[in-house]
Amino acid sequence: MKNLLVVGAGRSSGSLIQYLLKHAAADGYHVRVGDRSVELALEKTGNHPSAIAFEFDIENEAQRAEEIEAADLVVSLLPPALHILAARDCVRFGKNLVTASYVSAEIQQLHDDAVAKNIILLNECGLDPGIDHMSAMEIIHRLQDQGADITSFKSYTGGLVAPESNDNPWGYKFTWNPRNVIVAGQGTAKFIQNGRYHYTPYSRLFTEITPISVEGLGSFDGYANRDSLAYRKHYGIENIPTLIRGTLRQGGYCKAWQIFVTLGLTDDTYVIEDSENLTYAEIVEALIPAHIEGASTREKLAKLCAIDANDESMEMIAYTGIFENQKTGMKNATPAQILQQVLERKWVLKPGDKDMIVMQHQFEYTVSGQKGKIISTLVVKGSDTTHTAMAKTVGLPLGIAARMILYNKISLKGVQIPVHKEIYAPILTELSGCGVKFEE
Amino acid sequence: MKNLLVVGAGRSSGSLIQYLLKHAAADGYHVRVGDRSVELALEKTGNHPSAIAFEFDIENEAQRAEEIEAADLVVSLLPPALHILAARDCVRFGKNLVTASYVSAEIQQLHDDAVAKNIILLNECGLDPGIDHMSAMEIIHRLQDQGADITSFKSYTGGLVAPESNDNPWGYKFTWNPRNVIVAGQGTAKFIQNGRYHYTPYSRLFTEITPISVEGLGSFDGYANRDSLAYRKHYGIENIPTLIRGTLRQGGYCKAWQIFVTLGLTDDTYVIEDSENLTYAEIVEALIPAHIEGASTREKLAKLCAIDANDESMEMIAYTGIFENQKTGMKNATPAQILQQVLERKWVLKPGDKDMIVMQHQFEYTVSGQKGKIISTLVVKGSDTTHTAMAKTVGLPLGIAARMILYNKISLKGVQIPVHKEIYAPILTELSGCGVKFEE
Repeated sequence: MKNLLVVGAGRSSGSLIQYLLKHAAADGYHVRVGDRSVELALEKTGNHPSAIAFEFDIENEAQRAEEIEAADLVVSLLPPALHILAARDCVRFGKNLVTASYVSAEIQQLHDDAVAKNIILLNECGLDPGIDHMSAMEIIHRLQDQGADITSFKSYTGGLVAPESNDNPWGYKFTWNPRNVIVAGQGTAKFIQNGRYHYTPYSRLFTEITPISVEGLGSFDGYANRDSLAYRKHYGIENIPTLIRGTLRQGGYCKAWQIFVTLGLTDDTYVIEDSENLTYAEIVEALIPAHIEGASTREKLAKLCAIDANDESMEMIAYTGIFENQKTGMKNATPAQILQQVLERKWVLKPGDKDMIVMQHQFEYTVSGQKGKIISTLVVKGSDTTHTAMAKTVGLPLGIAARMILYNKISLKGVQIPVHKEIYAPILTELSGCGVKFEE
Repeated sequence: MKNLLVVGAGRSSGSLIQYLLKHAAADGYHVRVGDRSVELALEKTGNHPSAIAFEFDIENEAQRAEEIEAADLVVSLLPPALHILAARDCVRFGKNLVTASYVSAEIQQLHDDAVAKNIILLNECGLDPGIDHMSAMEIIHRLQDQGADITSFKSYTGGLVAPESNDNPWGYKFTWNPRNVIVAGQGTAKFIQNGRYHYTPYSRLFTEITPISVEGLGSFDGYANRDSLAYRKHYGIENIPTLIRGTLRQGGYCKAWQIFVTLGLTDDTYVIEDSENLTYAEIVEALIPAHIEGASTREKLAKLCAIDANDESMEMIAYTGIFENQKTGMKNATPAQILQQVLERKWVLKPGDKDMIVMQHQFEYTVSGQKGKIISTLVVKGSDTTHTAMAKTVGLPLGIAARMILYNKISLKGVQIPVHKEIYAPILTELSGCGVKFEE
C-alpha cells in the first residue's frame, strides 16, 4: 500500500482530494491529508476508508520529516513561500513532490540534488500556472511537428463568476484571494507584438484592452499580465514576433477599474491617516485634488477621470458603495484595503453560486506558405461551493500528475514544469474526460 | 589645537571646507579631510596650512576608529547610508557628529547612548533638510511667542539654474544627483489642506501644480513632496489645518515632465530588453500602445497624452533628444536610466554657469482675531562651479554648527535636528552675514 501525503486542505483542495480518494482503493494507496486545522482536513476527507486527516504544521521540523519520510509522494497546497520546506525534505528523503505554484529560485536550486536522488519536483501543475502551459505546449508541439512557423501567441485566462450566478454590474465575484484581485497588474506589463517590445505602466494598464470573444459567453476585456516575455523561453518559442499573456474580465470591467487606479484606491503601499474615522466618501475625496469642484464626490471623481458622471463605469463605481457616508471602521488601512473591504461586501459568492474559468489561446502560424489560425478555448463552471471551477482546474491536474508519478509514468527527474509531452499529454487526456476540455 | 575631521570631499564639500579653514587659525583647530580619492580631498584643501588631506575609507574599520578617536568632532558628507558607521564610532569614542542627512532609524537608536556619552549627533543640518527646518522654526517660534494660531504653512524649495545661466526650455540643469531628479516624487504625496488629508498618486503628481511667485524671478511650478505630514510633529504644529511641502521647478516644467511620467519613462524598476540596440525613438514607441497611430513618434506621444503635438510641452520633450533615431548604446537600461542619459547631455552646468536655490515659506495665522500672512523667501546663487549655491547652502550651516559644537555653544545632547532656537538662531544669523538670507 503506497502512501500519498497532501499538505494543506484549503480552498482548492476539495477536488484534488476527492479525485485521489476515488482512485485510492483500485490503485492501492491511501491518502494522508494534513492541515494546521484538522477540521478543514476532515471536511475534505469525510470518513473515506482510504483517507486519514490529521493536524499538521509544516513549520514543525520533526513532524515534517516524519511525515515526508513515510510518504511515497507529497502534494503541497501550502502558500507558495512554504513549499520550500516540503521540497527540501522531499530531496532529503528521496520523495517526489507536486505543487501548483511557480518555481521559486529556492526550489530551482534543488534541481541537481533532486536528479541525484532520482525524484521529480513537479511545479506549476494547477490551472495558471498549469493547464495554461500544458494546453499551449500541446498546440505548439503539434504546430512544430507540422513544420509550422508560429508568428503569434496570445493567451488570456480569467477566474470569473458564471453568468447565471452574476448579480452585479461588474460581472465579478471573489473566487480566490481578494487582495490579489485588488492589486492585480501592479508593476509594468511586458510583451512583444509584431517583433517589437511593448511596456504598459500600471497607470495605463486597464485602458489598454483587447476584446476577447468566447462562444456563448460574449465579449470579455483582456488586459496584459506582468511578464509575458519569460514564456518565450519556457515554451521554446524564443523568436516568436508576438507573445501576449493576459487576464480576462467581463466587458466594461476594465474601464471602471481604471477609475480606481487613477484615483489611487488600489495602492497598497501606504496607510491613510485616521482611516477608521473617515467615511468611504471622505477617503475618495482625500484622493481627489481640492481644486476639483462638483456637487458630489461622484461628480468630482468623474471630472478627475474626464468621464461623464452618468457613464456606465461611474454607475459601477457607485454600486460598490465607495461613495457612501459610512465610516470605514478600519484602522491603519491602505487604500487597497479600504477598496477590498467595500468589494468583499458586494462581490460575494453566495451558496449555490457557480464560478467559471475561461482560458483562451490564440495562435497564428504559417505552414508551407499558408497562414493559419487556431483559437482554443476552455470554459469550466463550478459544480458547487467546494468543487468550484477553480478547485477542479487546480486540483485535477495535480491529482492526475500525482498518480502518474506514483506509478512511474513520468521519467523526467529534478525540478520540472509540465511543458513536456510526456507529462502534459496524459494529463490533458484525462482532464478532458473530467469535463476540463478545450474547444478549437 | 583641536582636531576637526571631515569625511567625504565630494560635490557639496567645497564651501564647508573653505569656511572651516577660514576660521581654523583664529579658533585654534586644524581640519583633516578624508576621502576615498585623496585628489578630491586635496582639491578642496589646497595647500592650506590648517588642512591635511588624506585617503580615507569609512569601511576600513581600523582607519575609521583611529581617525574618529583622534578627532574632536566629525562632519560626515558621506552617502546617507554610510553615516551610521561614523556615528557608531562617534558614540564609542565620545565624539560629536554633524551631517546634512535625514535621521535614519539606525541613527535614532543611538540617542540614549549619545546622551550617556555627553555628545550630540546633529543631523539634517544642510539645506533641505537643514535651512528649511531652521528658517521655518524661526518663524513658527516667533508667531507662537506672539500668541498666534498658525493656520497654514506651505514651503517650497528648488535647486535650479540661475536665469542668466539658463539655455534650455526646461529652465533646469543638473546641480545634484541626476538620478534623484529623474525619480523625484515616486510614491504618494501626502499633505493636509483645510483640515483634510490629501494624497496624490505619482501618476498625477505633476498635474497638480501650485504656482509660486518669487519677486524678480517670476512664477514657478510647485509640486507636493512625498510626506508633508511628518513635519507637523517635527515642528510642534500637530494641529495645523494646512501643511504642504513641495519642490519648485520653472513654470511649464511640470506639464512637460508629466508626459514622461504618463509615458512611463521615469520608471526605474525594470530593464528594457535589448536596450542598447534600440534608438531613443524606439524606446518611446515601446511605451506607446500599438493601436495609437501617428505620422511620427512625437505625434503618437502627443495623442497618448491628449496634448497638441505642437504644444510648448511637446517642444520641451523634443528638445531632450528622446525622439532621435540614435541607438542608446546602454545595456540592460531601465527607462529612467535612458531618460537620465538623454538629459545629462542637455542639462549640463557649463563652466561659468551658476546654480540657484530658491526656498519659500508661506505662513497664515490669526493673532488676536486678526489674520496675518508671512511670505519668507531665500534666493541664493552660486559663485562658481565649486562654490555653487547648493554647496554654500549645504556646507555653511554644517560648518557653522561644527564650530558652535566645537566651542560648546550647543548644550543639547543625543540625536538632534536643528529645530531648537539654541541651534538655529545663531546659525541663521551667521548665514545671513554670508549672503544666505531670507526676505519677508
